[in-house]
Amino acid sequence: MTFSVTILGSSSALPTSKRFPTAHLFNSNERFFLIDCGEGTQIQLRRFRLRFSKINHVFISHLHGDHYLGLFGLISSFSLLGRKNDLHIYAHAGLKNMLDCMLAGHNISYTLVFHEIPENKAMQLYEDKNITVTTFPLKHRIAANAFLFKEKKRDLNLRKDAIPKYNLSIKDIQSIKKGNDFYWDADKLIKNEQLTLPSYKERSYAFCSDTAFYPKIVEYLENVDLLYHEATFTEEHRDFAKETKHSTAKQAAEIAKQAKADKLLIGHFSSRYKNVKELENEARETFNNTEAVEEGKTYQVELTRKIK
Amino acid sequence: MTFSVTILGSSSALPTSKRFPTAHLFNSNERFFLIDCGEGTQIQLRRFRLRFSKINHVFISHLHGDHYLGLFGLISSFSLLGRKNDLHIYAHAGLKNMLDCMLAGHNISYTLVFHEIPENKAMQLYEDKNITVTTFPLKHRIAANAFLFKEKKRDLNLRKDAIPKYNLSIKDIQSIKKGNDFYWDADKLIKNEQLTLPSYKERSYAFCSDTAFYPKIVEYLENVDLLYHEATFTEEHRDFAKETKHSTAKQAAEIAKQAKADKLLIGHFSSRYKNVKELENEARETFNNTEAVEEGKTYQVELTRKIK
Repeated sequence: MTFSVTILGSSSALPTSKRFPTAHLFNSNERFFLIDCGEGTQIQLRRFRLRFSKINHVFISHLHGDHYLGLFGLISSFSLLGRKNDLHIYAHAGLKNMLDCMLAGHNISYTLVFHEIPENKAMQLYEDKNITVTTFPLKHRIAANAFLFKEKKRDLNLRKDAIPKYNLSIKDIQSIKKGNDFYWDADKLIKNEQLTLPSYKERSYAFCSDTAFYPKIVEYLENVDLLYHEATFTEEHRDFAKETKHSTAKQAAEIAKQAKADKLLIGHFSSRYKNVKELENEARETFNNTEAVEEGKTYQVELTRKIK
Repeated sequence: MTFSVTILGSSSALPTSKRFPTAHLFNSNERFFLIDCGEGTQIQLRRFRLRFSKINHVFISHLHGDHYLGLFGLISSFSLLGRKNDLHIYAHAGLKNMLDCMLAGHNISYTLVFHEIPENKAMQLYEDKNITVTTFPLKHRIAANAFLFKEKKRDLNLRKDAIPKYNLSIKDIQSIKKGNDFYWDADKLIKNEQLTLPSYKERSYAFCSDTAFYPKIVEYLENVDLLYHEATFTEEHRDFAKETKHSTAKQAAEIAKQAKADKLLIGHFSSRYKNVKELENEARETFNNTEAVEEGKTYQVELTRKIK
């Protein structure tokens, strides 16, 4: 049960010779979700040998070019490769106009399904048997949205020896996994704790970019396992961050701390930083478990059992 | 007097992990001209440390995404960098619509000047004191145009010792450089050959992509110094080349041979070729002075004197 994100781009609006603009590839149990799609995303997908064709859902945080300009090439390449599956795109309304304009007269081998993200509203965008994806507003120069990927509540895990020992039927198993006790031979009560292990924790990953420091988002992020929060600048440029509605590394760490996140990833680095350790170090003073993202690297959230 | 082209992208429509889509940076005496602008062109410009801000003219051969999708990011980055100079874009009409659509509501720090390239017509697009740029039609699935960069005819070069020896005035010099003889002390005839060296040859570079094998273009390419011609496939896929209106390496070489080009560059390689030596070898059987382009490499045309 994979639950991970691979970083495809880590720069802010001006790419550098080493860093591509924003894109994350999220993997939930081998279902792939692309979050933002800066210029060159399809090149990064190939470079890192990722499962190009298994992406069925693309979430675009906001309509600044460094977050969506790779989409048109990706859509075109999917078609050249003969894709048949629908491709679902979740974005603010303006992107629909651009897609209509850029794809006019093009023959695409599959169906694009556009899902409009409303401005200034939190809502669920997607659901399958494993996860939900919800969105909530950030604070940027234009409408920008965060995405929260969260596993659904799981059933309890049956102890391996329980089935032969109590000769459990499928119906019994279903009931026990929901937390019920079991009557053996109709009258011997077997407590649920004797039959089950604690279930796995529901894992979560949140993507927050681009945004000014905005503590209002903490309510959506409580106890998130993996928090990606933009950190375009260091505190040295705090005023410029405020003016451009971006965050400093320290501010990203402050959000992680308030949200009681398990781990913080920072990215969207300004081209002025040759070495992003500077930003990582700044964030770690406030929130120790911080990593400045590396392109091509996969950050996995491990399965852990709940404590009863 | 630089006259060179640097390759930024060499792949056909599907980029690979190693090859970016088409873009060439042409340098005429430190004036920079971008020819095509595939996705990631701005990233390649930075990677190869090229003079980003000195590009004032962009020529787009045709409206397939792998030849223009990098333009929107480049336009945006120029603006973020505070560009003030006009940027001239030469392309078929459809691109104007896309630019209007993609840039709606964006604040660009400079003026974009759009020059429409008509379909099915040869014409001069640009002229400065050193060069002209002309365009002529290729044969592709949609309207596609070639670009020919050619130095203007030069004056003869004065021999260094002539000025003191004959006490030449500026007016005398101008006349001699045009090829006229000179009367010294009003009656002694000095033949022009005694006063001048042969002038430098006018150098030329042609960009032909994308196109089926189309010998009609040879008339525009006669004696070209540096011919770039697409070679998407080898002869093994000649039928597929014909069907998709692309060329094989052998066909590109045939054009170079018929045009009596000095050197042939081939590019726009299909992603199926891991090693492009295969295409280079095929072309060399027909036209020996062929190179399969390498991204980041600059191909210079040296100055040589005309033989009298």
